Amino acid sequence: MSFQDECRDGPVLIVGSVAYDSVRTPFGETSEVLGGAASYASVSASFFAPVRLVGVVGEDFAEEHVARLAQRNVDLAGLQRAPGKTFRWAGYYEYDLNQAHTTATELNVFQDFRPDLPASYRDTPYLFLANIQPALQLSVLDQIRQPKLVVCDTMNFWIENAEDTLLEVLARCDIALMNDAEVRELTGESNLIAAGRGVLNAGPGVVVIKKGEHGALMMSRDSYFTAPGYPLEEIRDPTGAGDTFAGGLVGYLARCGATDDETLRRAIIAGSVMASFTVEDFSLDRLFALSPEEVAERYHEIVAMTRFGAF
Amino acid sequence: MSFQDECRDGPVLIVGSVAYDSVRTPFGETSEVLGGAASYASVSASFFAPVRLVGVVGEDFAEEHVARLAQRNVDLAGLQRAPGKTFRWAGYYEYDLNQAHTTATELNVFQDFRPDLPASYRDTPYLFLANIQPALQLSVLDQIRQPKLVVCDTMNFWIENAEDTLLEVLARCDIALMNDAEVRELTGESNLIAAGRGVLNAGPGVVVIKKGEHGALMMSRDSYFTAPGYPLEEIRDPTGAGDTFAGGLVGYLARCGATDDETLRRAIIAGSVMASFTVEDFSLDRLFALSPEEVAERYHEIVAMTRFGAF
Repeated sequence: MSFQDECRDGPVLIVGSVAYDSVRTPFGETSEVLGGAASYASVSASFFAPVRLVGVVGEDFAEEHVARLAQRNVDLAGLQRAPGKTFRWAGYYEYDLNQAHTTATELNVFQDFRPDLPASYRDTPYLFLANIQPALQLSVLDQIRQPKLVVCDTMNFWIENAEDTLLEVLARCDIALMNDAEVRELTGESNLIAAGRGVLNAGPGVVVIKKGEHGALMMSRDSYFTAPGYPLEEIRDPTGAGDTFAGGLVGYLARCGATDDETLRRAIIAGSVMASFTVEDFSLDRLFALSPEEVAERYHEIVAMTRFGAF
Repeated sequence: MSFQDECRDGPVLIVGSVAYDSVRTPFGETSEVLGGAASYASVSASFFAPVRLVGVVGEDFAEEHVARLAQRNVDLAGLQRAPGKTFRWAGYYEYDLNQAHTTATELNVFQDFRPDLPASYRDTPYLFLANIQPALQLSVLDQIRQPKLVVCDTMNFWIENAEDTLLEVLARCDIALMNDAEVRELTGESNLIAAGRGVLNAGPGVVVIKKGEHGALMMSRDSYFTAPGYPLEEIRDPTGAGDTFAGGLVGYLARCGATDDETLRRAIIAGSVMASFTVEDFSLDRLFALSPEEVAERYHEIVAMTRFGAF
């Protein structure tokens, strides 16, 4: 069911939201389906490495969804169950699928979420801090012992409302994942390369700028890498694409047991492959139906799409 | 001064506007400097192959500019000189450098431009029809004899005002160059891949979709190729980037004497390299100061930026 058998390192610890989403796109509509950054990232990472999920759900969280995550070898010892309802998000997309329009956010049990790492999780080598309040990201960093790699995500809301704490997080992580609008907003630079450099100046050794359908750009102090978007003719629901990308990236690194520039490049392609599947259907439906053979095949397609000869 | 000595085929015939541009960007301002699609494309192509330019200028066109083009081995036997003033365009860009805002267009001598190919031009093997009225593009196609390759560009104005004639042009060309907004507008498809396929259905074997800072996507019936944008930290003026790209692409193909998929991929990278230089300064200033060594070096940089290993 996955490449986990080949995993040389790991596991991967993922901290973030588990949610029920109601989404409308020009291609369909769903109500209260499994979502949340940690769900997407965990299932994506699980293709490459064992995963530990830290999050919170309410009393209404379905056993079916617990079972589906567990089937993917996602360890749920860190998934708290709190009195109340699971976090809910509702939104829609128009034909510009890069732009989500939120119609309702009910934090519910997520409101008082305090990530508590089980003792057995504190030595996890690979950590992905999905988009949550930067203060909570810091509290996870305070609980974990000498991770090999810390990857963090964020969103415009924290840039606008918790910038100082976010900068503390960035100073303590190895790879910052942000979308193009976010790096521009954080740094006040309209030029993407200058903005990326601004993020590097805040601390992380690597910034990966997600550009939606245009792919991703990785920058470090001495290297650039550009990854294309996979050319999909049918995108049904872009929800979770960025989180799936992140999970695939971290999982792939754990599988390889390396975080050098060469491995990072392949990890970005692996993350892009995973994200390209997620958007083919609503919720995690495509990921749950995905085979490792399909992952490898699409990776090879991207190789074929990008290769060109010497001058 | 160029790679023309290595050119295995060619020359390249370029038909389009020669203009005086007045441009303001956040990084500076110029008044009545050399511009026009044919100028940018010709100088760019001249790095790789001998060039023949067909266009029109007024009595005010400076000898200095004739001399600069001639120095690049651009044959000007097809450059008509008509009574009146040279075509003028004025516009500005804000921080979104993908969006040109036109403040004035004076067609002047361009109003009555009829491309007349000198007899010696009619057997030119490589043809680039820059963005002009589709009826004029057709008249060039009627004058030229069995070219090896026809590449055409267009713009939203012709999609909206001369769609039928434009479709005739597309049916007779080998490679259509369009930007992402144009392929979407022409085909009525919001998805870029579906839109690209729609253009292919109109006739050309290849469509190259220009995505500005996001690079370019080439589609044929059985192949995709994605080329990244070169990550420039300083862009002074985006005017002419698309025409420079086109000129570099056609020139590179002529240099190689081939138009197969492998050569096309390298030609797209060569075009991207040329465009990345053009935008570093106003008018054709950077192109006129450019060395072949710089071109080869930036090509190698793009190789380094895009390579990644197997899954």
